[in-house]
Amino acid sequence: MKPESTGLRRQLYEIIFEADTPAGRRFDILLIGCILASVVVVMLDSVHEIAAEYYSLLHFAEWVFTAIFTVEYLLRLYSIQKPWRYATSFFGVVDLLAILPTFIALLLPGAQFLLVIRILRVLRVFRVLKLAQHLSEAQVLAKALKASQRKIQVFIAGVLSLVVILGSLMYLIEGEAGGFTSIPRSMYWAIVTLTTVGYGDISPKTPWGQALASVVMILGYAIIAVPTGIVSAELSQATLRGRPPVDQRACPGCGVEGHGSEAKFCQRCGTAL
Amino acid sequence: MKPESTGLRRQLYEIIFEADTPAGRRFDILLIGCILASVVVVMLDSVHEIAAEYYSLLHFAEWVFTAIFTVEYLLRLYSIQKPWRYATSFFGVVDLLAILPTFIALLLPGAQFLLVIRILRVLRVFRVLKLAQHLSEAQVLAKALKASQRKIQVFIAGVLSLVVILGSLMYLIEGEAGGFTSIPRSMYWAIVTLTTVGYGDISPKTPWGQALASVVMILGYAIIAVPTGIVSAELSQATLRGRPPVDQRACPGCGVEGHGSEAKFCQRCGTAL
Amino acid sequence: MKPESTGLRRQLYEIIFEADTPAGRRFDILLIGCILASVVVVMLDSVHEIAAEYYSLLHFAEWVFTAIFTVEYLLRLYSIQKPWRYATSFFGVVDLLAILPTFIALLLPGAQFLLVIRILRVLRVFRVLKLAQHLSEAQVLAKALKASQRKIQVFIAGVLSLVVILGSLMYLIEGEAGGFTSIPRSMYWAIVTLTTVGYGDISPKTPWGQALASVVMILGYAIIAVPTGIVSAELSQATLRGRPPVDQRACPGCGVEGHGSEAKFCQRCGTAL
Amino acid sequence: MKPESTGLRRQLYEIIFEADTPAGRRFDILLIGCILASVVVVMLDSVHEIAAEYYSLLHFAEWVFTAIFTVEYLLRLYSIQKPWRYATSFFGVVDLLAILPTFIALLLPGAQFLLVIRILRVLRVFRVLKLAQHLSEAQVLAKALKASQRKIQVFIAGVLSLVVILGSLMYLIEGEAGGFTSIPRSMYWAIVTLTTVGYGDISPKTPWGQALASVVMILGYAIIAVPTGIVSAELSQATLRGRPPVDQRACPGCGVEGHGSEAKFCQRCGTAL
Repeated sequence: MKPESTGLRRQLYEIIFEADTPAGRRFDILLIGCILASVVVVMLDSVHEIAAEYYSLLHFAEWVFTAIFTVEYLLRLYSIQKPWRYATSFFGVVDLLAILPTFIALLLPGAQFLLVIRILRVLRVFRVLKLAQHLSEAQVLAKALKASQRKIQVFIAGVLSLVVILGSLMYLIEGEAGGFTSIPRSMYWAIVTLTTVGYGDISPKTPWGQALASVVMILGYAIIAVPTGIVSAELSQATLRGRPPVDQRACPGCGVEGHGSEAKFCQRCGTAL
Repeated sequence: MKPESTGLRRQLYEIIFEADTPAGRRFDILLIGCILASVVVVMLDSVHEIAAEYYSLLHFAEWVFTAIFTVEYLLRLYSIQKPWRYATSFFGVVDLLAILPTFIALLLPGAQFLLVIRILRVLRVFRVLKLAQHLSEAQVLAKALKASQRKIQVFIAGVLSLVVILGSLMYLIEGEAGGFTSIPRSMYWAIVTLTTVGYGDISPKTPWGQALASVVMILGYAIIAVPTGIVSAELSQATLRGRPPVDQRACPGCGVEGHGSEAKFCQRCGTAL
Repeated sequence: MKPESTGLRRQLYEIIFEADTPAGRRFDILLIGCILASVVVVMLDSVHEIAAEYYSLLHFAEWVFTAIFTVEYLLRLYSIQKPWRYATSFFGVVDLLAILPTFIALLLPGAQFLLVIRILRVLRVFRVLKLAQHLSEAQVLAKALKASQRKIQVFIAGVLSLVVILGSLMYLIEGEAGGFTSIPRSMYWAIVTLTTVGYGDISPKTPWGQALASVVMILGYAIIAVPTGIVSAELSQATLRGRPPVDQRACPGCGVEGHGSEAKFCQRCGTAL
Repeated sequence: MKPESTGLRRQLYEIIFEADTPAGRRFDILLIGCILASVVVVMLDSVHEIAAEYYSLLHFAEWVFTAIFTVEYLLRLYSIQKPWRYATSFFGVVDLLAILPTFIALLLPGAQFLLVIRILRVLRVFRVLKLAQHLSEAQVLAKALKASQRKIQVFIAGVLSLVVILGSLMYLIEGEAGGFTSIPRSMYWAIVTLTTVGYGDISPKTPWGQALASVVMILGYAIIAVPTGIVSAELSQATLRGRPPVDQRACPGCGVEGHGSEAKFCQRCGTAL
């Protein structure tokens, strides 16, 4: 049963939440343009030379984008049937976080850089471009990652224990001289080394320290094989099982997407689709 | 046949070793809280600014935790049927190592930092949280690693030979100037490079040295594929074979866990479960 | 139906485009020698000490090679039936790019270093050496990469969003002191860290910055598993499916290769093979 | 048909080449001890502080070991039926290289460090320890690597082309200031970055350079997945196919090992086993 709604609300809903109609599509493309532009503005604002010269322009652009996104957010709340459900969904929270920092920055300078969270809104792009295929690929990825979640938790717990022990050993062996001034700092070194990042800001100077570091690196070499192996194995299986069909309808109740193609009601709030 | 034991010993055993009863569970959670807190104390103790200000407090906390763990260790020995078996099992040794360093530190300052070994005791957490699933995942991981053990040994032997030869070559090519002051130090460089850690504390300066380094890096690139491939292949098979059911009973004789669900006697000491 | 062409044009075509006749093979080997030599000349030209001493020699060699390649390009255009098709194909564009920079360098000094693009011409080597096997292997690789293309796009989009957010966070936490002078620069750091390259030119100095960096590194560790898993899974399947037979005939119309062994007409321009 | 040989030669052969008899085993273990000790001596010789103090001792040990290995090499040549075949086999060449540098060092100081090549002789350890299992694992590894050889060749060719082009681009963008003083040096940087080693001895300073470097790193991220995927896929298949039985007999003709268990004649020289 279709929800009865006033013509305007219903029309707004279709433009803002759906991407099937020409108007809805144009709206989404415009929105993504605004999002990308606003993220670029935030970035430029953080570069001294540019901020010094174009201060007022950037400031103005930031407020314009915030105004646009605020209006859009209010329209979303107005046009949807269950505003609270939308506001507490993933994209609802992101949409709010995308406007809050500008206002917070009035009290707390620097907060405006948090606006980069807006980039998350761009993930809607997959819907606009009708990239259903991409969505289903993302689902295969997400499924494989979820299936290997527990193995990865066990793995991370093991790695962290190793980091604590190796970091402490290194602290005892190298001490102050090599830059290992405390156990937490040595643990930072252990993570930098085990993950093969290797900044080199802290590195062992004594022969014994270098010997232990060599063992840590060989260990890291062996360890890096584990998560890769886990994900490979799960992905192999997920790929074999094939891809699930993806439906692009947004729930008129709460705006959530990703229902199966036979679904008649929203998984999250029960509204008829 | 159930072992006959005095009521107190039996009760203590159930609280300390089992996690099925409410009392046993509360004990385990409290214990893990103590362990994490004591590891944090050891870490803070190694940070100069904090140690200077809160010296006596940290010192006091360390002794309190050691006292708690000592009492716990003695109770474990008392309540179990075969104390020696427990004392020589993996967790028995860890439990002892978790209290020794505090006493050793009276004679040998600095030894208290070895207390971080306590972190290993936290691995019991998997039992407390009834994460049987996690345990079985850990077993799949362990199994795959064990199955690929020999391949990895051959691989490590090959890598070490390569490290000796590449390190010596680099020592001859670069010499003192580039920081390659001895063969062991050049071997350290070779490990840093082959594992793609790349600190940059030692790096070739001459064109020939950089040419050899380039070859070493491409080699490391190819080599890193091998352990990953080994673990992936084994994990694929282990995942296909499915997960074995896991039993959570601890042996009343020696405290070892991980018996199959149909096991009637402990694998390690033969006590009836 | 074979295209009728004058004897000379046909003969030139067979020498320049085919590698089946002895003359064609000799031509290709000579050509690859010239290409490699010319790339080495460009490289040497960029080394100050060498360029200072042998300036006129290198300059002369560069013009000789450019002359050779220009003549060759014109002959290719002349001998083929559909010159425009060839000129707009991949190798046609590369062949043009391999001669243009020398002329551009007359107006714009420095442009001659773009001549290294010539190295792409060497990819023809696989045809000369009759490495049909290598070609089919390359096709398996390309196929697997193409099959995993969408998953990799989703993955890259996710990584880039992460880079924007982590870079901004780090900019707020570390600020100027640690070298994180702007958000773009912090994003550069985030990429250096996530990919486990770890130059160390920018690295966190404050405890909170190091804590966040540790999280980023562990994340990078988990993330690196994903593309590997994707490619492994696809390659496993591609390997199982077996290798397609590869045909070495070049199209007499546009010079494109890689047709199936039963193909009678060129896939690109429809000329009979 | 067993080869007829004088008692002494035959006995020497069994002691030196075989590991089945108690005498043969004791010989092999002693030999490996000597090899490891002599490699350690070479390493210590390269450490200034140690070499200064124990110069004559190390020098003496080096000559003793060289004498032992020379005698052993001559005995090997004497006891085997086809000395030339042995001398040109892999281990024959290694055995010779293990003694030559000491003599060369009389004329050319520094050559003695090449003695570390002796480490390769230790690979015989697998035979001594009766690690037939390890040998068969090594064969599975070698087989998988061989099966993926062509794919890896194509891959390395592609990576090298990329390195030439990216290095030249970076040379044009960054120039002298950032340390990119020539194309070969920029190529070195490109390899350091693509392989995710990241020393940081050369790193881009300009925004455009950092942007290109970011692209290179993301590329390296994607590229590293390829060799891993190749080896994983081949190893998966090799593991499925099972392990071939391994035979430990050395050929009395040329000393080569690794024949199938049903082999009656040596693969290399045709002598009856």
